[in-house]
Amino acid sequence: MRQSHIFTKTRREAPKDEVAKNAQLLIRAGFIHKEMAGVYSYLPLGLRTLNKIVGIIREEMNAIGGQEVHLTALQDKALWEKTGRWNDAVVDDWFKTTFKSGAEVGLGFTHEEPLTALMKNHIRSFRDLPQAVYQFQTKFRNEKRAKSGILRGREFLMKDLYSFNVDEKTHNEYYERATDAYIRIFDRLGIGAQTYRTFASGGSFSKYSHEFQTVCEAGEDTIYLNEAKKVAVNKEVLNDEVLGNLGLKRDELIEKNGVEVGNIFTLGTKYSEPLGLVYKDADGISKPVIMGCYGIGPGRAMGTIVEIHADEKGLVWPEAVAPFAVHLIALFDEKGTVKKAADELYERLVKKGVEVLYDDRDCGAGEKFGDSDLVGIPRRYIISEKTLAVDAAGGGSIEVKDRATGKVEMKAIKSL
Amino acid sequence: MRQSHIFTKTRREAPKDEVAKNAQLLIRAGFIHKEMAGVYSYLPLGLRTLNKIVGIIREEMNAIGGQEVHLTALQDKALWEKTGRWNDAVVDDWFKTTFKSGAEVGLGFTHEEPLTALMKNHIRSFRDLPQAVYQFQTKFRNEKRAKSGILRGREFLMKDLYSFNVDEKTHNEYYERATDAYIRIFDRLGIGAQTYRTFASGGSFSKYSHEFQTVCEAGEDTIYLNEAKKVAVNKEVLNDEVLGNLGLKRDELIEKNGVEVGNIFTLGTKYSEPLGLVYKDADGISKPVIMGCYGIGPGRAMGTIVEIHADEKGLVWPEAVAPFAVHLIALFDEKGTVKKAADELYERLVKKGVEVLYDDRDCGAGEKFGDSDLVGIPRRYIISEKTLAVDAAGGGSIEVKDRATGKVEMKAIKSL
Repeated sequence: MRQSHIFTKTRREAPKDEVAKNAQLLIRAGFIHKEMAGVYSYLPLGLRTLNKIVGIIREEMNAIGGQEVHLTALQDKALWEKTGRWNDAVVDDWFKTTFKSGAEVGLGFTHEEPLTALMKNHIRSFRDLPQAVYQFQTKFRNEKRAKSGILRGREFLMKDLYSFNVDEKTHNEYYERATDAYIRIFDRLGIGAQTYRTFASGGSFSKYSHEFQTVCEAGEDTIYLNEAKKVAVNKEVLNDEVLGNLGLKRDELIEKNGVEVGNIFTLGTKYSEPLGLVYKDADGISKPVIMGCYGIGPGRAMGTIVEIHADEKGLVWPEAVAPFAVHLIALFDEKGTVKKAADELYERLVKKGVEVLYDDRDCGAGEKFGDSDLVGIPRRYIISEKTLAVDAAGGGSIEVKDRATGKVEMKAIKSL
Repeated sequence: MRQSHIFTKTRREAPKDEVAKNAQLLIRAGFIHKEMAGVYSYLPLGLRTLNKIVGIIREEMNAIGGQEVHLTALQDKALWEKTGRWNDAVVDDWFKTTFKSGAEVGLGFTHEEPLTALMKNHIRSFRDLPQAVYQFQTKFRNEKRAKSGILRGREFLMKDLYSFNVDEKTHNEYYERATDAYIRIFDRLGIGAQTYRTFASGGSFSKYSHEFQTVCEAGEDTIYLNEAKKVAVNKEVLNDEVLGNLGLKRDELIEKNGVEVGNIFTLGTKYSEPLGLVYKDADGISKPVIMGCYGIGPGRAMGTIVEIHADEKGLVWPEAVAPFAVHLIALFDEKGTVKKAADELYERLVKKGVEVLYDDRDCGAGEKFGDSDLVGIPRRYIISEKTLAVDAAGGGSIEVKDRATGKVEMKAIKSL
């Protein structure tokens, strides 16, 4: 894409009320726009990155048999009353509104209730199980405070998968498959090294739930991690009994801040019982379906990637989630030689399927380099009179710079 | 995809309170689920079709220079007060809710205000124009009545593009390009023949706006169309002066119901003036940006396709929007010969990139054919002992049936 065609401009300063590093940088680089506290719009570069993250998660959810759906934000009060979660004393971050009739309606902060109710139309016997159903859907949470940028939004995209099984054994097997998928996802997003499977509080059906916590200063959670074993315990469940259960010793643990980039939870029959999601087993006996839920916020993951990888010059994207793979920067000369060579190189790369952002703007080298550092595309190709003079007989060269390491090398244009 | 892996089941009956043909059929076929009146979730088959529609619209928006963004549902009251549209007497279909602080916040029914405000960060001079920005975003409209299925939802996906130009001349040129893109979109969606560019009421900046009305019994609008000229006039602006302007004669017009599948509108400075979106022209003089807006509801388009093409047996999808191109139906024999041949054919088609739904379920031919008619995939491949016996020496045959025309032919499996 030609940079002259992108409407966003970079900014020297983020809005004064923005305190989170991820949002400050993403706003300055033109990836997101702050509508209100905790409410962010995605601009072209930001949407490209978000979609890359969504694409990776979707592939991994499909690989574990997930079937994609899209439920609604508007939520039926009657359904949530059946599980007791309509009550503001139970769930304190509802947004609620009213139909013209005066009837109350909620904005979904999660989707156990509507999906469980929906599945009643499709699950009758053990032959209809197992199932795994997921969506990418906008959630609304009426957070009291929203100061962490896109790490904690009042409106945010969420991937939520729900599993439906006949019994605990098959549920547990699926839970482990989902765990493995989550580990692959965070690896592919470039935060695997910093992300720990973390024991957190469970429920009636399982002692623990599991969070995936990325160690990061901006994290709102406190975790205790064992680096060698690559596991952690959330502060909320840290006690001697739990440590004993898990075979961990207190003095081997390090306290860190973590961002909860994912969580998986055994729901058991918590929703299937009150909502009547049952199946008939081989003997014709009616039993409640065993459920699990598995969440990742793609926006929160994006914010975490920023927090982990950005440096003092700006964003630094791992290749798999970068809005473009290559930032082609042309330092134009008056004769038009550089423009001609850069245009040709750009067209050639695009034809080969390389995602290139081509800085074809009429502005100085300093502005181009500064913007490029801020935007954080992994590889920078610089083309100028100077680089074209290197191996000129062979068609000239470009300077290739790695955004993360700063490593620079010259490459013949022909070789690309 | 193997049909045995899809969790949705077809139904003989739609919910009793569902009166719209589009929703009745889509619910029965397992494409959508009714959460509440005017509030529908998309299930795997429905989401595939919706995504095909979105993909076509996206391609055409990109082709006219559209840059994709994703704004938020939550809307800042202060912004909408500046244009006078926060007032419920002016806009009567707001959903509004409140933050924990008690401050009111709206759910976007459209996005002129936030996008105009956002563009102030990025447009300064005439050099920053023109721009065209679009999104696929969920809109919320507090409709009093919602009885038309996915033709009129209280929560629905919308593609809205906004154009930003320096003057009326360049705006008008872009408006014509967008019109051409809309015509291409409705052609590609398979409703081009029934869709008329329709003159409707304009605003201070242009005499008319344009709707794209698809002639259809279920349509809520009344239009008067001239078939030969392929134009129509919305009842709301039908008078002798308008007919004179457009060179139409009353006795050449036919009254029809129409579904407004798209609309394009010259906004002029209606939003740029109150919100202060200005640019400096070549002489350094500050001028308000000239805007246009261009909407299509992918869900409404999907409902319209259903209304137009479905028959008494069920859905009939044009190929470009069908959830799958081929419905492979295997009528298994006891020896397993059909299963083996069907599995092989399925794997081969998938490898070739054909989108196949493979009915590998253990159920009778009647159920398979009935479901297939209901689901409406364009081409049906039937494989059975009988078809395998045709040209058995050459590897057997399948029966190919066209869903729309009912035309049947035998084809050698090898030839596929």
